[in-house]
Amino acid sequence: MAELKEIQKYVTELFAKQDFAKQPLVLYEPFQYTMSLGGKRLRPLLVMLAADMFSLDYRQTDNAAVAIELAHNFTLLHDDIMDESPLRRGKPTVYQKFGTDKAILSGDVMYAKAYDYLLKCDTDKIPQLVKTLTSVLIQVCEGQAYDMNFEQRNDVTQREYITMISLKTSVLLAAALKMGAILAGAKAEDMNALSEFGLYLGIAFQLQDDILDCWSDLNEFGKVIGSDIVDNKKTILFLTAVEKADNGDDRELITWYLEKTNDFQKKKQRVIELFEKYDVRSDVEKMIGSYTIKALDALDRVNVEQNQKDNLITLAKELINRKK
Amino acid sequence: MAELKEIQKYVTELFAKQDFAKQPLVLYEPFQYTMSLGGKRLRPLLVMLAADMFSLDYRQTDNAAVAIELAHNFTLLHDDIMDESPLRRGKPTVYQKFGTDKAILSGDVMYAKAYDYLLKCDTDKIPQLVKTLTSVLIQVCEGQAYDMNFEQRNDVTQREYITMISLKTSVLLAAALKMGAILAGAKAEDMNALSEFGLYLGIAFQLQDDILDCWSDLNEFGKVIGSDIVDNKKTILFLTAVEKADNGDDRELITWYLEKTNDFQKKKQRVIELFEKYDVRSDVEKMIGSYTIKALDALDRVNVEQNQKDNLITLAKELINRKK
Repeated sequence: MAELKEIQKYVTELFAKQDFAKQPLVLYEPFQYTMSLGGKRLRPLLVMLAADMFSLDYRQTDNAAVAIELAHNFTLLHDDIMDESPLRRGKPTVYQKFGTDKAILSGDVMYAKAYDYLLKCDTDKIPQLVKTLTSVLIQVCEGQAYDMNFEQRNDVTQREYITMISLKTSVLLAAALKMGAILAGAKAEDMNALSEFGLYLGIAFQLQDDILDCWSDLNEFGKVIGSDIVDNKKTILFLTAVEKADNGDDRELITWYLEKTNDFQKKKQRVIELFEKYDVRSDVEKMIGSYTIKALDALDRVNVEQNQKDNLITLAKELINRKK
Repeated sequence: MAELKEIQKYVTELFAKQDFAKQPLVLYEPFQYTMSLGGKRLRPLLVMLAADMFSLDYRQTDNAAVAIELAHNFTLLHDDIMDESPLRRGKPTVYQKFGTDKAILSGDVMYAKAYDYLLKCDTDKIPQLVKTLTSVLIQVCEGQAYDMNFEQRNDVTQREYITMISLKTSVLLAAALKMGAILAGAKAEDMNALSEFGLYLGIAFQLQDDILDCWSDLNEFGKVIGSDIVDNKKTILFLTAVEKADNGDDRELITWYLEKTNDFQKKKQRVIELFEKYDVRSDVEKMIGSYTIKALDALDRVNVEQNQKDNLITLAKELINRKK
């Protein structure tokens, strides 16, 4: 088994050397821009860690690793248009920099390129890999649709929210792990347990993201603080706060999310004050703890030597405790 | 071999019975709307005709036929956003009816569903089918990128235009035929000759589309007459006219395409007058004839009995002579 840091370094270098720019530039320049923005490269790392756990040389999974990162970046590219997000990783989003049309189109070609990379894998693995990617892309679109739908609704439950983020975020982490397992020829039951680990880890990861949106340093996080509040995103913090707040406060919270205001600073400040008044951060941190335990329980069921799981355990803890 | 009309009827019924509406409706309602708008169902028909030509029962190709139609409709959905097209098949386009965000997202899920249908085919055919679809989707995006780029340029050549429409239109027809051939287990050389037929047929088909945009009846064609002119699309008619026109007229044509005007009626009328003055329609009809001959020559090289090719020959002639 390889060291976690070694694999992380390998992933960073793999993406540093990719060059997606080619003709026509109108299409591939925004593509290359997106891919060069960096990011955690978490999904490719998961492909490689899964392969490594099942004793396949992680350096044999480059194509699947690139494929899943392309698929992920495609979803970000289109989501940023729909969410009108100005920044991604501290830089202007593609639609802001190149315009909506080019953002749509370069996302579309990135989508196909994800499949194109999968097609470079061993032929006998292709049907399973393509099935995994396709299923996850359908679910991510459904998750984004629920997310859009929630913006129009005032009766979203915590349970619905968890379903939405599972679809929008977790399934992609689970798919990355599954791809590594497929390439390593893992057994179906192990693959399923590992996917379950990815699903729960993804939920914990997204809940942590919700926290970081409110309490984080702009430079470290690379996004605008409180952007979920400005966008009226009914995150777990909002849903928990509305549930816990007394009559006056819950109405005030809902009003902030319903009424149009241009005073975003005041809105963010007041909403975060209310989140703090009801201490929803610690509620959400408890949820994160509970999903992390579920994730580790699932990982426990994978039939490989305990020490083979060390990297995934270390990574899971890093993700849950991350500050950006 | 089956009758052309029988296969056409089968394709129509196949799509009439599809129901893509499911939860979340925000995602699948625009999807179902798009698929219920109808259209020629040309690409699924080509899948089936190719299978039938190579002696596979065409009724065994439903999944690939649905896949290619989904892929085609996905491209229309996103293109209509980029081109700001108000109408498609005489009805409001998805982005007009449901908004840009839902149009982007339902296009994205349609894209994945295309792969999902391919995955229902025999496992041993999946890698080749996925490769065909992926390659074509990349090319279609590149074609759309060139199309967008041409709007900004004043030195587009006829040759560049033909390359662009090959990418944007023809490759999808070629891919449809190839999928039918893959399912029927045709030989590589026959598949390639058939794809070539599709490529040339696609060019002829698109050139005919350019003609129909100017000289066609709105009710029959289902689009707004002269919309290419309003959108400053440098179609083959425009490029040919600019090349043939005398000094004053070519400047006038270029000016119509450069300057902003709100008097679209006058613009369309005057541009079509100039097209007619230089008789570019008959030039383009000659090109169509020449690409049709190339298509039929390629079909001729496919190693099956001559009468097995009758349906494709009949269809090709119908397409080239169509009035809508």
